[in-house]
Amino acid sequence: MITYNIADSGSDSIYEFLSKSIKKDIVQGILKAGEKLPSKRQLAKNLGVSVITVENAYGQLMAEGYIYSIPKKGFYVSDFKFPVQEKKAVFTREMVSLAGQAGSWLADFTSNQTETDLFPFTIWSKVIREVLNDSRVQLMTNSESGGIQALRESIACYLKEFRDMHVWPEQIIVGAGTEYLYSLLIQLLGREKIYAVENPGYRKLEKIYGSLGADCRWIAMDEAGICISDLEKQQADIVHITPSHQYPAGIIMPVSRRYEMLGWASREEGRYIIEDDYDSELRLSGRPVPTLQSIDMSECVIYMNTFTKTLCSTVRISYMILPQKLLTQFYEKLSFYSCTVSNFEQYTLAKFIKEGKFETHINRLRNYYRRKRDILLEALKKGERKEVISVSGEESGLHFLMKIHSNLPESVFLERVRSMGIKLVPLSFYYYGESGRPENVYVMNYSSVDITKADEIADKIYKCCIE
Amino acid sequence: MITYNIADSGSDSIYEFLSKSIKKDIVQGILKAGEKLPSKRQLAKNLGVSVITVENAYGQLMAEGYIYSIPKKGFYVSDFKFPVQEKKAVFTREMVSLAGQAGSWLADFTSNQTETDLFPFTIWSKVIREVLNDSRVQLMTNSESGGIQALRESIACYLKEFRDMHVWPEQIIVGAGTEYLYSLLIQLLGREKIYAVENPGYRKLEKIYGSLGADCRWIAMDEAGICISDLEKQQADIVHITPSHQYPAGIIMPVSRRYEMLGWASREEGRYIIEDDYDSELRLSGRPVPTLQSIDMSECVIYMNTFTKTLCSTVRISYMILPQKLLTQFYEKLSFYSCTVSNFEQYTLAKFIKEGKFETHINRLRNYYRRKRDILLEALKKGERKEVISVSGEESGLHFLMKIHSNLPESVFLERVRSMGIKLVPLSFYYYGESGRPENVYVMNYSSVDITKADEIADKIYKCCIE
Repeated sequence: MITYNIADSGSDSIYEFLSKSIKKDIVQGILKAGEKLPSKRQLAKNLGVSVITVENAYGQLMAEGYIYSIPKKGFYVSDFKFPVQEKKAVFTREMVSLAGQAGSWLADFTSNQTETDLFPFTIWSKVIREVLNDSRVQLMTNSESGGIQALRESIACYLKEFRDMHVWPEQIIVGAGTEYLYSLLIQLLGREKIYAVENPGYRKLEKIYGSLGADCRWIAMDEAGICISDLEKQQADIVHITPSHQYPAGIIMPVSRRYEMLGWASREEGRYIIEDDYDSELRLSGRPVPTLQSIDMSECVIYMNTFTKTLCSTVRISYMILPQKLLTQFYEKLSFYSCTVSNFEQYTLAKFIKEGKFETHINRLRNYYRRKRDILLEALKKGERKEVISVSGEESGLHFLMKIHSNLPESVFLERVRSMGIKLVPLSFYYYGESGRPENVYVMNYSSVDITKADEIADKIYKCCIE
Repeated sequence: MITYNIADSGSDSIYEFLSKSIKKDIVQGILKAGEKLPSKRQLAKNLGVSVITVENAYGQLMAEGYIYSIPKKGFYVSDFKFPVQEKKAVFTREMVSLAGQAGSWLADFTSNQTETDLFPFTIWSKVIREVLNDSRVQLMTNSESGGIQALRESIACYLKEFRDMHVWPEQIIVGAGTEYLYSLLIQLLGREKIYAVENPGYRKLEKIYGSLGADCRWIAMDEAGICISDLEKQQADIVHITPSHQYPAGIIMPVSRRYEMLGWASREEGRYIIEDDYDSELRLSGRPVPTLQSIDMSECVIYMNTFTKTLCSTVRISYMILPQKLLTQFYEKLSFYSCTVSNFEQYTLAKFIKEGKFETHINRLRNYYRRKRDILLEALKKGERKEVISVSGEESGLHFLMKIHSNLPESVFLERVRSMGIKLVPLSFYYYGESGRPENVYVMNYSSVDITKADEIADKIYKCCIE
């Protein structure tokens, strides 16, 4: 009869030790397929353990399929073939080029990361605490696919009060980042449609549309934004634009082009404009520009915004506003999905907005970034620096363009600043195709740069230009 | 010259009032395209406001494109066509069949919602508070695409200690729910592949694969799980299974079939098994069944698990473990995506696991659900009830099957229990096609049912059977 030394069981419980031991004997062929095991009673007596212990061990082995029982006869070893045991390839961390590894830059103008001190930790903690105390039942109640009602209402109120946008909470769909919302949109509008993005534009968009299997085309822009003629020529169905503050060119789309865009969309059934309003709250002078959504009478605009820039880049909450005519379709086709944002953060954000804390925070951000931008611009324009450096598109949002008046090839300049700890991305990077690429213009995302080092940064940039 | 009564400005600032007034005049055609506006100085004097105020108003109008300036000449009204203003369709809430609307059921056996008292609010609050105090810099540092390192390490340690699974943190990809992870997988493995799911199976899977544009086939099952022969016949490339506890049939896949599955996968390049281990932590008797992942030597298994069942259904954190041979591909193709789970929850969960609180919580859950299940089973088997009600698949997880021995058509029985406030879903609902559908078997997800009402619920079910 099989026997094991119970004293060897170590930290395992006896039944675990027993089931592992028998399993090992089966795997090693010591116990053979079809072989009968001792009865529970026999084995218990033999090992000096309780029948319950053997019963549990046999139960585990049965559950895993190593043995089977025939009623009134007993327990038998199952018949199965083990595959040849190949060695697993040895894993080395070098196999993985981890994304998002932070370098130690003097200034990284490519990052959208929020500075630690800018996040309202104290208030946020307080709101979380209140939510955890007061809303336990709601926190445990599954969110609707489009988000919890309280958050959608808070957003609708906020949009009405501060952006003059009139939408129903039901039109607002909350998701874990705009990237996720794009994937919902493609499922809603259809993978067979032709999607269009701005050239130059946010490169990630094309990657996302491509990765999700949609045909994505680049549309030429003029000084007012995307060209309607090119949109027609490329037979786009859905166009994705950033009219409040074009990324990266910085254009604010004038009202004339806005109406032309709406005209284009309403001319044919199934055309939609995705209005990506990613940083309009951070227009630093004057009021935010009215949205396309607010002047759209033909229900062609899908509005998108995110709390990534206004709260912090590591809280993943975005939302889109569907035109009413897409609502039924959305709820029929896609409401089977669970909402991707946890209730805890949805309720916290809802309360944060409702109690006016979000608006206060935005105002604080605007002042902070305005000051930061001004210091940086001043440093870039100081003394002889202004001879070789000029900036544009600095009125709005968290980036501007910097032009270097130099004959240096871009790659050389980039390498020079890089060696001084400054990470820049050229505007040309955002262009698809060769035509129209500007030379020596750089997109300056300044939100995460340490502004106390503005002068040092500007000096290094200057030195890289002139040498 | 244009003039406005500044006294009408109401709550708006004067510059806002002024820009809105001029905008209105342009829209209404009072100011015509090409018309010259008064100079800033003139208008300021005329209205009795500062030049700065007029400058801000003109600036806003320029930014929005209503007017333009010619240097040294002045400001002019832009030329653009307004579209015909259609009336927006009136929105009625009836247009939207909101998902997730909770009914007031005596017992809802279709819900996976977590009972409020079961969530460890006190401990979770404490951990959040500590994270918010101690990890501010980390909280603001963008997560890697696959999740923050701390969480991936915590999960890897947990899997090693409690599931005997040996994986590198880099193999673990964290996302906002398994539904989201499926969409990543399809992007990774290819939309042109043939995906296979279990029949009967979790219906949502087919919806998700379909919605994402992948070909999804249903594979027949026998008593050991999915049939390899049908998998071959249907030319599946990727098969999605629930071996630890098949949903909804409750089968635990025996080790023999597991090895057959691995054999199938390793026979051809590009075949993968998605092992959906959604509730294995909640095996109520004995140890969790070893995963396919842990015996996979050919790198064919993609393991998936979620905290939806073990923490609560409204925290959206799931993860998958990629085999090493898919890692490079994943990081090259998909690491441009931002992680969909916020840092706040990632760090909180990481700490919760690392400090052993998760394991404690799971043990509490197991005991709680075991007791709950036992009470419910006892109620269903009490007295004459056991003549018409039998159960199976009750050893593991948060659902079991209930068979009604009755000649009632399913639809009649369902309607009867429904009228008594009991929501059930028949096992037949999970079947694709007509063959093999069981009659009068119901899938009992008991996790959210109020167990103090077990006897009342069982009594009502019994009465519905016999009448």
